[in-house]
Amino acid sequence: MQLSLDELTGLCKRRGFIYQASEIYGGLNGFWDYGPLGVELKNNLRDAWWHDMVRCPPIGPDGNPVNIVGLDSSIIQNPKTWEASGHVGGFNDPMVDCRESKSRYRADHLLVYKPNSDTVPPVSYAFMEGDEASALKKIKKEAKGSEANYDKIYLVELPLEDYALIKGPDATETGTLTEPKDFNLMFETYIGATSGHDNKAYLRPETAQGIFLNYKNVCDTMRVKMPFGIAQIGKSFRNEVTPRNFIFRSREFEQMEMEWFCPPEEAKIWYDFWVETRFNWWVSLGIDPDNLIKREHDSDELAHYSTACADVEYKYPFTAPNYGELEGIAHRGCYDLSQHQEHAGTKMEFFDQESNSKYIPHVIEPASGLTRGVLVLLCEAYKEEWVGKGDNAEILPAEAGQQAPEGFEKRGVMNFSPRMAPIKTAIFPLLKNRPELVEKARGIYNQVNRRYASAWDVTGAIGRRYRRQDEVGTPYCITIDFDSLEDGTVTLRDRDTMKQERVHESELMALLSEKLEE
Amino acid sequence: MQLSLDELTGLCKRRGFIYQASEIYGGLNGFWDYGPLGVELKNNLRDAWWHDMVRCPPIGPDGNPVNIVGLDSSIIQNPKTWEASGHVGGFNDPMVDCRESKSRYRADHLLVYKPNSDTVPPVSYAFMEGDEASALKKIKKEAKGSEANYDKIYLVELPLEDYALIKGPDATETGTLTEPKDFNLMFETYIGATSGHDNKAYLRPETAQGIFLNYKNVCDTMRVKMPFGIAQIGKSFRNEVTPRNFIFRSREFEQMEMEWFCPPEEAKIWYDFWVETRFNWWVSLGIDPDNLIKREHDSDELAHYSTACADVEYKYPFTAPNYGELEGIAHRGCYDLSQHQEHAGTKMEFFDQESNSKYIPHVIEPASGLTRGVLVLLCEAYKEEWVGKGDNAEILPAEAGQQAPEGFEKRGVMNFSPRMAPIKTAIFPLLKNRPELVEKARGIYNQVNRRYASAWDVTGAIGRRYRRQDEVGTPYCITIDFDSLEDGTVTLRDRDTMKQERVHESELMALLSEKLEE
Repeated sequence: MQLSLDELTGLCKRRGFIYQASEIYGGLNGFWDYGPLGVELKNNLRDAWWHDMVRCPPIGPDGNPVNIVGLDSSIIQNPKTWEASGHVGGFNDPMVDCRESKSRYRADHLLVYKPNSDTVPPVSYAFMEGDEASALKKIKKEAKGSEANYDKIYLVELPLEDYALIKGPDATETGTLTEPKDFNLMFETYIGATSGHDNKAYLRPETAQGIFLNYKNVCDTMRVKMPFGIAQIGKSFRNEVTPRNFIFRSREFEQMEMEWFCPPEEAKIWYDFWVETRFNWWVSLGIDPDNLIKREHDSDELAHYSTACADVEYKYPFTAPNYGELEGIAHRGCYDLSQHQEHAGTKMEFFDQESNSKYIPHVIEPASGLTRGVLVLLCEAYKEEWVGKGDNAEILPAEAGQQAPEGFEKRGVMNFSPRMAPIKTAIFPLLKNRPELVEKARGIYNQVNRRYASAWDVTGAIGRRYRRQDEVGTPYCITIDFDSLEDGTVTLRDRDTMKQERVHESELMALLSEKLEE
Repeated sequence: MQLSLDELTGLCKRRGFIYQASEIYGGLNGFWDYGPLGVELKNNLRDAWWHDMVRCPPIGPDGNPVNIVGLDSSIIQNPKTWEASGHVGGFNDPMVDCRESKSRYRADHLLVYKPNSDTVPPVSYAFMEGDEASALKKIKKEAKGSEANYDKIYLVELPLEDYALIKGPDATETGTLTEPKDFNLMFETYIGATSGHDNKAYLRPETAQGIFLNYKNVCDTMRVKMPFGIAQIGKSFRNEVTPRNFIFRSREFEQMEMEWFCPPEEAKIWYDFWVETRFNWWVSLGIDPDNLIKREHDSDELAHYSTACADVEYKYPFTAPNYGELEGIAHRGCYDLSQHQEHAGTKMEFFDQESNSKYIPHVIEPASGLTRGVLVLLCEAYKEEWVGKGDNAEILPAEAGQQAPEGFEKRGVMNFSPRMAPIKTAIFPLLKNRPELVEKARGIYNQVNRRYASAWDVTGAIGRRYRRQDEVGTPYCITIDFDSLEDGTVTLRDRDTMKQERVHESELMALLSEKLEE
């Protein structure tokens, strides 16, 4: 049973994963802050990607690990970068405004009911994708016509002269919508003390271009051989008209992008390699493969310079039963390097000693959202279950909207893989007012925490402490009780099975290492 | 022998530590990109800070580790944040423009030669701090007066009516400088599709305010007890008028900041604790304590709400023999929380169950630059030495501007601590065209690299490979030769002593663990 996005947002706030940015000032639409547990979860995902891409990269088709180096480029770059990349000219969403309601809409998200018969008045009704109800209400009230007398089409397919007959989604008059106007999604700023055209700059809308800017530097200083990759993790910014779906589409977000440079004739092989490799990577983090799909883009979805692109998509609560983007793997050809070669006047050719040839490499780009990945981990991990009370160790999947059966109670649990879990173990002295218990537990905490991020909790009954840790996904809880003082054993409790075992403290670290290090 | 900043900048580019941002487009003043080795060095420093502050925080005065949680807040926040914090009103540098040359200067960085005698023309000469020469040249040419006939004073000390008699640094006419005008250092941007006052926002000039914004959320959701800290690492932006000194003062940079919340009456104790703890932390990374000082601010340097502030300062090549800021530890009182309480109308009081009292906590803030820390690590690590040729194992410190003595040659070496070194070991098969050597070395590389970031180098004589690794600070090199195939031993070579020992491959990991994990 997946939570709705609203429920997940609430849980994330309540347990310190994600807060609304500037909440005390009423928030800021499209911006989110990562709380104490959220930042650890995000760092775990970040570090796993860096480890598996840069430090110990995947084994290539020849049986050896591929070669990938890291990079961290500026968010603000010389604005010529974004002219060359095409973002200044082409990174736009079409917008229409309503002169009456002052609302603004993404033109490609608006639909229109347009009369196809003379029996109804010649008025069209526009509505936002997903909000058909309000248009139908107006039709019912004003036109008394049946829906059958209208065609439903996208606003952008209507000729402009028809706009005078449209009633906007929040308008009472007809003909209040402006022509669609391109709106560039890059945030602008100004460097230096005056705001003139000369010193306009942009916050990067993707980390990728920072890699292309440094391709030449890396070739010249790092003794790289083809094929190789440059990887980067960092923040990007898009001035989204309608940020939505929690951290799925925010205006400030983090990306994990890698540009893979290879000889043109090898590009197809590497494209297939990276689509496969990246899909499997998400599965390795504990995402159920049933909730993931690979989707090849149709040829009409591709950019003009691209010959192939595939998305790894996840079944989000707001897309289910359909899927939404998590990562894209794009075959970009030599487009970006050629553009920069032309605009910067810098040769981007690689002299390949092995083949004794010169070429502009082709590029395969696996690009995913780090913050979007966090959303997937959260959506995927949270489960509600009915667990037996007392001696009943049975666990049943909870059914939505139902009460737990007699003898059972509900628990919420995040089943993060140990690698992703923000907290790996929690250590509890049975009673907080018994110094000998607290002291012994402290010693164990200090030992365990040196190796595995651990929580310390002394408050409430042990059962309640278990539930608190379950809800944030801590794989193991360790309780120190009076027996521990006598015989040196502690209780080790498993999050998923809820089973408990008695372990001698001398064996604890070895056992945790076995359980936590996959 | 320290490198000059220009030499260091060159080395950093040549070896893939730091590149100028947008270099192929002529760069962008005040922005830098971190190359493959630079990003690893920066990540090591970032991870060490997070580990030593959040994961395994310092032991407090009571013998237990203090409690610090992490956070990652947005770069863009609701603009009311910066009104409350005082940055909209007060985060300014005074600027003057030259109407003739169109140059812009920081008013407080300009000095003036003003006549104090009637024997010279009544013209004053302005010049940039550090560029007195050009002013003296003008005086010599135009006024034929001796320097003795002029007083040297700061521009900002001159009354405005005297400006009509000043010749600007790059001007040929007199009276071309404008009045000083405050220039706010925050980068501005606009959220949404129109650029109006209503949707102006700022790129944060510090990460600290993101912590204060979330103080209440953390208190409400994380079961914290006083005293506790919230730590954050992230990018900040300052629209510096004159960015300079490589990555010391750049317009986009990274900070590591922690806000320590405590009962007002304990603030002084914690202030002393953090000044001491943070100084020692830098020493623990391998910075020579002779190159670091603690400097208490004079009372006239303190912000009006602050009762104490100390800097940890480092002897940079551009400040030596003096010191420049690396970290500041500020006693901020309850200023920030009180400001947000007033502006947001949200109570910031903490109910302290232990003392059964309510108060706005006081704050101690240890704040350092992550990117500035990288500069310190680089300045500190690089040494040039004269090393004996052939069988001569002697190492002498190189003397600036001198040739190496007979029988010696120069080597450049970065003596990073193992924890900071971007690469921990380098693995060399003796010859690249002998598959049995390459295969054996590959096996050892894969084993070592799984645990310690390692380089692979097959090109050139072993001595040259050693030098390449020395220059980027790799602590150990491992060579696989024909004896390795026979008896399973490899050569382990120490960066600092240049001594070599023969080690059996079965003992390699244990030995590396001993040497690399301090």
